[in-house]
Amino acid sequence: MWQFHYAQHTISLAAHIALEEAGADFQAHRIDFREAQQQSPDYLAINPKGRVPALVTEQGVLTETPAMLVFIAQTFPDAGLAPLSDPFAFAKMQEFNSYIASTLHVNHAHRMRGYRWSDDEASWASMKAKVGETMSASFAHVEEWYLDGQYVMGAEFSTADAYLFTVAQWMEGDKVDPDQFPKVKAHRDMMRERPSVQRALATQFG
Amino acid sequence: MWQFHYAQHTISLAAHIALEEAGADFQAHRIDFREAQQQSPDYLAINPKGRVPALVTEQGVLTETPAMLVFIAQTFPDAGLAPLSDPFAFAKMQEFNSYIASTLHVNHAHRMRGYRWSDDEASWASMKAKVGETMSASFAHVEEWYLDGQYVMGAEFSTADAYLFTVAQWMEGDKVDPDQFPKVKAHRDMMRERPSVQRALATQFG
Repeated sequence: MWQFHYAQHTISLAAHIALEEAGADFQAHRIDFREAQQQSPDYLAINPKGRVPALVTEQGVLTETPAMLVFIAQTFPDAGLAPLSDPFAFAKMQEFNSYIASTLHVNHAHRMRGYRWSDDEASWASMKAKVGETMSASFAHVEEWYLDGQYVMGAEFSTADAYLFTVAQWMEGDKVDPDQFPKVKAHRDMMRERPSVQRALATQFG
Repeated sequence: MWQFHYAQHTISLAAHIALEEAGADFQAHRIDFREAQQQSPDYLAINPKGRVPALVTEQGVLTETPAMLVFIAQTFPDAGLAPLSDPFAFAKMQEFNSYIASTLHVNHAHRMRGYRWSDDEASWASMKAKVGETMSASFAHVEEWYLDGQYVMGAEFSTADAYLFTVAQWMEGDKVDPDQFPKVKAHRDMMRERPSVQRALATQFG
């Protein structure tokens, strides 16, 4: 059985939703960031980066959300989580996931984690002040170039939907107005009704 | 024929090396950042993000290095650029590529592109000042957890090698001492001798 390590209000919700979609046999373990459990020796032995999520499999530990999402999709091909037999469609899904990981999520991180990139506390405030602008730009990109259909990639559900739903949770906290992005907002409302999402949220916040 | 858009001294070298490794039929087009060609209407019509690389294929445009690397590997399976038949090994390669994209490359970007995340010029200097520390931490992670063998993933060459070689070009400029990371340094020396790398560098800097 896989062991899945997550923390509340983090990107780990995306892989959690994918695990529920796949019907994977897994146990979920909450890492409490308020108690800095991600820096505990026990957790660092699992993920030396001190981040979530981490997925412990029979073959070893896997980290990084885009990698984990594809691994779940490939391990459970019948779940329909990725266009596995169409390399270009698969690449477009990966393009979306990579944009979320390396641009949108990074913009978000400047609200609370400016200390990663500067030792000057005054600069942290200036980074926080710009997050509404940078996150709005990222959601505008998603709104314009994806969601040409019910799902992120168009007609078919994929891991990209779990990823977008997760980061769309952050809009209000990041001072992004959801009404400016009607397709993202409608997608978020639709995803919230999905049983896999409800199960993942019930575990993470139950 | 594919059209590949790159800029000098950027992450686009990684996909360029992969294209050379694959023996792909492509034309390379230089985007001159000094003349802000990445913001020209012609280029924004190709990649609205105004970034490199971008790969124009018969099926559409592809961006984001991790997605592009896997697309090249899947399109040319005989080139041996990824463990395509082993989902966990494939996921570990993707984990590495995702770490480079969303952590190491992001650390690097704070040296020259602090304006992305703050409007306060004083903060840009504080971000630049920390890049040696954050990039050293990223290379320390690579040194400790990968390169257990000749290549990033161990015994087999993969897209991760093209990616690591590309970011390892930045060490000196980012005030990282290569001698502190002997495995990364030896990998960089080895990769520099590879014909695919020499062809990509000859095109980009010839």
